[in-house]
This record gives sequence, structure tokens and C-alpha cells, in this order.
Amino acid sequence: MEWINKSNILVVGLGLMGGSYAKALKKVGYHVMAIDKKPEAIEYALANGIIDEGSASPDEAIISKADAVIFGLYPQTFKEWIRNYQQFFKSGIRITDVTGVKKCIVYDIQDMLREDVEFIASHPMAGREVFGVENSDDRIFRNANYIITPTDKNSTDAIEWCASLGRLLGVRKVSILSPEEHDMMIGYVSQLTHVIAVSLMTCNDNHHLVDYTGDSFRDLTRIARINENMWSELFEMNKDVLITQMDNFINEVSTMKHLLEKDDVEGMKEKMRLSTTRRAWFD
Amino acid sequence: MEWINKSNILVVGLGLMGGSYAKALKKVGYHVMAIDKKPEAIEYALANGIIDEGSASPDEAIISKADAVIFGLYPQTFKEWIRNYQQFFKSGIRITDVTGVKKCIVYDIQDMLREDVEFIASHPMAGREVFGVENSDDRIFRNANYIITPTDKNSTDAIEWCASLGRLLGVRKVSILSPEEHDMMIGYVSQLTHVIAVSLMTCNDNHHLVDYTGDSFRDLTRIARINENMWSELFEMNKDVLITQMDNFINEVSTMKHLLEKDDVEGMKEKMRLSTTRRAWFD
Repeated sequence: MEWINKSNILVVGLGLMGGSYAKALKKVGYHVMAIDKKPEAIEYALANGIIDEGSASPDEAIISKADAVIFGLYPQTFKEWIRNYQQFFKSGIRITDVTGVKKCIVYDIQDMLREDVEFIASHPMAGREVFGVENSDDRIFRNANYIITPTDKNSTDAIEWCASLGRLLGVRKVSILSPEEHDMMIGYVSQLTHVIAVSLMTCNDNHHLVDYTGDSFRDLTRIARINENMWSELFEMNKDVLITQMDNFINEVSTMKHLLEKDDVEGMKEKMRLSTTRRAWFD
Repeated sequence: MEWINKSNILVVGLGLMGGSYAKALKKVGYHVMAIDKKPEAIEYALANGIIDEGSASPDEAIISKADAVIFGLYPQTFKEWIRNYQQFFKSGIRITDVTGVKKCIVYDIQDMLREDVEFIASHPMAGREVFGVENSDDRIFRNANYIITPTDKNSTDAIEWCASLGRLLGVRKVSILSPEEHDMMIGYVSQLTHVIAVSLMTCNDNHHLVDYTGDSFRDLTRIARINENMWSELFEMNKDVLITQMDNFINEVSTMKHLLEKDDVEGMKEKMRLSTTRRAWFD
């Protein structure tokens, strides 16, 4: 199956991400199906034309019709789902995911998966601070980076198929990284930033400060509204990398503190100049 | 002199903030004068109609004409300026400032100031990541909080005058805090956030990550492009408060790290729920 055909696509896990995939794929003409354990998510998606068909249980009739499957589940749930229901997959299909950690799932899933089905992992770096299919929006992909994390088990065709899915979503850039490189990167640019936002919010009883915050505080804490079930699982599944990143960061803040304690103004300026130079790369 | 009269306003220090004040005041009809040690800043402002009159030196003819003065200088420079040139002030005028720290300047300036001139301190919580009068923009005040920090030495009239200046700039909210309350608040919502942004940027050699960053990393590091001269001085002048805030924050990130090390998922979720609840106050 290639994306040029108008095939049957199954989305498993119809939350914010799954729903956004469904919207994007239906717009370009695919027959989009979904499975989600919440009946109200399926009902909402059907009533709003986000999917063509759906079920609140792992319905063999739907699963066996899929030419490709996109998994929008949490990591552990994803593994359990494959273990329990891969028997229903049609032979020769490809599956991909949206998971924010890779090393701890890609190898496990590829090891347990049937020989006649290929799992090519990907991660669209998009999201919002709201949840559920009701908030899904296919515009979230527009400025997103989309990362494919193949292993030795993946075929060139599957990698290209997965890249074409990213292009179809309208992402800004498609990249290829190993699962290990992906997790190192994500531990820094995404997981550490969430730890920081949460810690900034919780380190002070700040209700009385609502009237005095400027843009900088709001920017740094936008992601402090956080889905605790998803993020605690993502942190656990990238634990070693994230702990290293937290150590690096704590050391750096401590260094700034020591410079200030010693009135080492030149030392602080040096850090600020480095910061300014580096931030310019990201503009 | 009241703001309802079209008086002569002097801006000392014509950078981003001074220039933005000048633009806002000129729009409503004041005769706006400026002094800045950089001749090119004065020339630019004159050529672009931002001010009516200006000088690159502390010109007695200009200073003595001012009915009110707004200081856009760094804290130490502000004190030196008052020490050296307050002799030129017309009797009975009011002066204010834009300085981001208060305790270390308000009392010193009030102590050294002539009896017939009143200093009422204020802090418009607005800014941009660019500098200089060329980038000044009176729209930066629109969503800003504007804080007046009076002491026992200030008159009710001067406080009201300063509040009316804030309203004239079009700020979102005018508040009154003591210099001490102001510095406690600013150490957390502004200075600590800048320390965090700089530390996040400098704790990792991240040039190769430019292609993979999502919105969260960009949001958390927007202010990592930083004016090292201004911020190192602001940090020094609020040193004790900022060190306490850094300690609180380092402890909180360390707590998150220990929870993760112990696989205390419920403990991490608890922090995330607190963070989510608190962040909602700021929306």
C-alpha cells in the first residue's frame, strides 16, 4: 500500500494526536477508521466527520480492513495492544506511531511483531496544552518537525512511506535519527523543558503574583499545564537520558548562582553572551 | 505640573524603553526632550520625529526646562546622573524611572535628591529582545503591568501622577507595591526566568539540535537572547532575593530528579497536577 492509493487507514488511540492525523488523512481522501476505548471519542469523531468508521473495542472487522495503522497510544499501552491484537492485522501492512520516546518501544515492538507486518517508528513534534479528539487540529503539523527512527529491521520502502506520511500531514521538516539519537535529543529539547516549566511553577506559592507576570514568565510556563499521565510515563521511559539532562541543567543553574554569589559579573556576562549566540541559531 | 497640561518631558537614557516612552508621550502632545550619551541615538530620534529636542550631553538648557523627567538608565548610572546633574532641575518637578530593581535605588535616590524635587519610582514590565531607540515601540505597553513603588517620602499626588503616566502609556494594569515586595516578585517572575532560559541554552552544546526543536524549547529560550550588561547589573542589585529564588528552583528540579530516580510516578504526577492547577491561574 502506498499513500497515492486511497486506502483504509486505521488510527488506534483517538486523542489529540490521533484525531489530528485522522482529520489530515480524511481531507486528502483516505477512508479513515479509528479504535479508542472511550465510546464518546468515537461518537464525537463520527458525528463530526473526523472518521468514517470506528469502534470502542478492538474490532477484528475494522482492524483486518486496515492497509496501514497509526498508533496514538501511550508507550506501554501500545505494546500491550500489539501483543493482544496483532493477530487481526492484514498481511503486508505497515504500522507507525506518534510516541515521544523511541528506544524503549521500537525494538520491543519490532521483536514481538509478526514477520509479515513492518513497524516504522515516527514522532511528529507537535502538540497542544489541551487533550482529546475534541481539540484535534491538523494545523498543528504545519511548523512541526517530524522524525523517523528506523532500525536495521526497516526497509527503505517503509522509511520512504513514513516520510511521505509526514509530507502529507504538511510538516515543516522530515528527519531521520536512530532511536537512541532521538531519545537523547528529546530528553533535552522536550522533556527537560517540561521539567523546568513544572518546577518553575511549583517552586513558589505564586497565586498572588498573577497580576505581575510579564511575557517571560508566561512563555516559560505555557507547558506547565501538563498531562500528568502521559508525561510521567514518557519521563520513566527515557529515565537515564532525562536524569543526565537534569544534572547538566542543575549544574548550570548552580554555576550561575555561584557566579552571582562571588559577584563575578564578567563570568555571568560570559554565560549570557554564549546564551545569546546559541539562541540566535534557533531564529 | 500635571499630565493634563502639555508640559516639557525629558527622557534621560534613550534606549528601547526611553524611546518607547518618548513615542507614547509625543503622540499625546507633549514636548518631548531627550538626553543620551550616544549622539547617534539622539540624531536618530530627531530625524524620525521621536523627540522634539535632544542632546548627547547633560545640557543645562534642556534639563532646566523639564517639567518632569523619566529615567531610562541602568541603576548605577541613574544614581551617578542624579548626583552630578540634579542641580539643573527646575524646582518642584517630579521624576520617575523604568528600572527593573527598586530597593537598591529608590531609597538612595530619595536620600540624595534635592528637597524640592520628588522621585516616585515605577517599573513598566515591558520589553523586547532587541535594543536601542531604533527598536522602540509604544505598543509594548499595551499588555504590560506597570508597578509603582512609593516609600514614606512620597506624596499621594506624586503617586497619582505616576499612575496617570502609566494609564497614558496604555498599560494593562497599574499596581502599587513596596520596593521590597517589588524586588521579591521580580526576582521570581523575571530574573529567575532569565537565569533559567540562559542555563537551558548553555547547559548543552546544541547547535546540531536546531532542526529538532519544538515550540516548547523555543518558548523557554526566547529570552535567552539577553543584554548581558543590563541583566548582570539587575542580578547584582537584587542578589539576595535572586539567590533564594535560584535555591528554591534548584531544589524543586532536584526533587523531580529524585522522584524519577526512585520511579515515584505518583510523586511526579502530584507535582504535575499542582503545576497544572497553578498555571491555570495565569490564563
